[in-house]
Amino acid sequence: MSSNKPVQIVEVGPRDGLQHERVWVSTETKVAYVNALARSGLRRIEVTSFVHPGAVPQLVDAEKVLARIDRPEGVRFSALVPNMHGFERAQSCNLDEIAVFTGATDSFVRRNINMSIDESIAAFKPVVDAGLAAGIGVRGYVSTVFGCPYDGVVKPQAGIDVALRLFDLGCSEVSIGDTIGVATPGSVRTWLEVAGKQLPLEHLALHFHDTRGTALANVMAAAEVGITVFDASAGGLGGCPFAPGASGNVATDDLVYSLHGTGYETGIHLGKLVAASRIIASELDHLLPGRYFQAERVNAPFE
Amino acid sequence: MSSNKPVQIVEVGPRDGLQHERVWVSTETKVAYVNALARSGLRRIEVTSFVHPGAVPQLVDAEKVLARIDRPEGVRFSALVPNMHGFERAQSCNLDEIAVFTGATDSFVRRNINMSIDESIAAFKPVVDAGLAAGIGVRGYVSTVFGCPYDGVVKPQAGIDVALRLFDLGCSEVSIGDTIGVATPGSVRTWLEVAGKQLPLEHLALHFHDTRGTALANVMAAAEVGITVFDASAGGLGGCPFAPGASGNVATDDLVYSLHGTGYETGIHLGKLVAASRIIASELDHLLPGRYFQAERVNAPFE
Repeated sequence: MSSNKPVQIVEVGPRDGLQHERVWVSTETKVAYVNALARSGLRRIEVTSFVHPGAVPQLVDAEKVLARIDRPEGVRFSALVPNMHGFERAQSCNLDEIAVFTGATDSFVRRNINMSIDESIAAFKPVVDAGLAAGIGVRGYVSTVFGCPYDGVVKPQAGIDVALRLFDLGCSEVSIGDTIGVATPGSVRTWLEVAGKQLPLEHLALHFHDTRGTALANVMAAAEVGITVFDASAGGLGGCPFAPGASGNVATDDLVYSLHGTGYETGIHLGKLVAASRIIASELDHLLPGRYFQAERVNAPFE
Repeated sequence: MSSNKPVQIVEVGPRDGLQHERVWVSTETKVAYVNALARSGLRRIEVTSFVHPGAVPQLVDAEKVLARIDRPEGVRFSALVPNMHGFERAQSCNLDEIAVFTGATDSFVRRNINMSIDESIAAFKPVVDAGLAAGIGVRGYVSTVFGCPYDGVVKPQAGIDVALRLFDLGCSEVSIGDTIGVATPGSVRTWLEVAGKQLPLEHLALHFHDTRGTALANVMAAAEVGITVFDASAGGLGGCPFAPGASGNVATDDLVYSLHGTGYETGIHLGKLVAASRIIASELDHLLPGRYFQAERVNAPFE
């Protein structure tokens, strides 16, 4: 009966986080990790990706992980599916949602998936159609919305146009990505002001990377404007203090701590979330960068 | 002729940051570092501390550093001065400002400086009087305002009461410290709402540590409410990724990046600020934790 405003977190650690880790994490650990994430109260978890195994070797066991995780009621499990070959692999995996991934700039999309934006949209059409025909949700990702490593600053309209096309295809939600972490609370507000006139804000998620330390502040600014869905990675998995500049998603733990302290409700139990990260942290070759996760190791808990 | 709102940053890296570093930094490097910070456009720099050398061996060369740094016009240099013995050392050092340091909870103040809050205020009186008689500004610090490692959550009134007493003593500014980094945008807004009825907000600075990742979001929330002075540490000096949980101040670089992107003006040049941190970074036994500082090493600059 809380009067706090609900915020939904889409946990992307097992996919967006884990795909950058150099050390092979066993299928068994991945399964235990995803199960623990679900126990923490997370209601949406992006578990893996059906990209070509050569592109992301860490996620080569996508089918095995999805076959073995628990399926608690009320938790939606999703996976990235880039093309029809991926969809064929995915369709026996009992997914609640699939996701397709493009970007706001041709330069980035071309380097990332070797297509233009137009080509990527065309390639997604059968995937989205197949997902809808199978009765599951389809999420679209738009990367480099606030800045591109090749083109620099990106105009708001570029990302908005791609988001519109993804909604037109039939996506039920579009995740707006600050892939290289250049957004600030100011640029987020400006973007949302422009986007709000053209896009259904209630069907957007925001996806911030913490490259310049602004990710959490960006979420807080967007939440104030009424955005209610955010992508995050438990413990900041994906960012690495030994690979400077390769910053991961905003840490779910930091985000939950900040949201709860500011009158939002996520349904997530911080202690259990940290416990989930611990399962995977011990197998990695570096410390997880999330601040709350690190603080939890040495300080009395503040929740 | 910018229409951006001015925000003042008090650079505390050379004092609050450096005091935690295990590796001895030579006087020569400290001088070059402070000079470079001043060249970046910072207008207030807390250079060192006149505490007992046994308490903070890193800052044992306080007089030497202050004797050798450049004194560009318009830059105010300050130092922490805990007692009259410190003041005697400080008074030949041509300081523009001195600072005294107490806290919102007796438990923390007692462990930190072996006095109760009352005793600390009594001990500061002659220091503040001497500073005012010498015609220089006196800043008061109140630590543990949002939480205490021994007492847990701290009520807003506790910090407000201590701030009131520091203003009564004659302090021209009081810095409100979240020493253990437990504040959130929500608790900051609540605190400022209560404090605004009793304290002159235009004479407050806010001082956030990034223990749980919320420091930058807290500054952005406070700036929106009208606070215009923030303490920060270039490159996040003072926090260490190899000493988890020992988080430093919000990184000046991250803060400047976020403020500039959100319609505030600080007068600070980000490239020059990063250059200043590089001077000291090369002598430390760990990577500076500031995200912008780290990103700058590998990415094209976004300013």
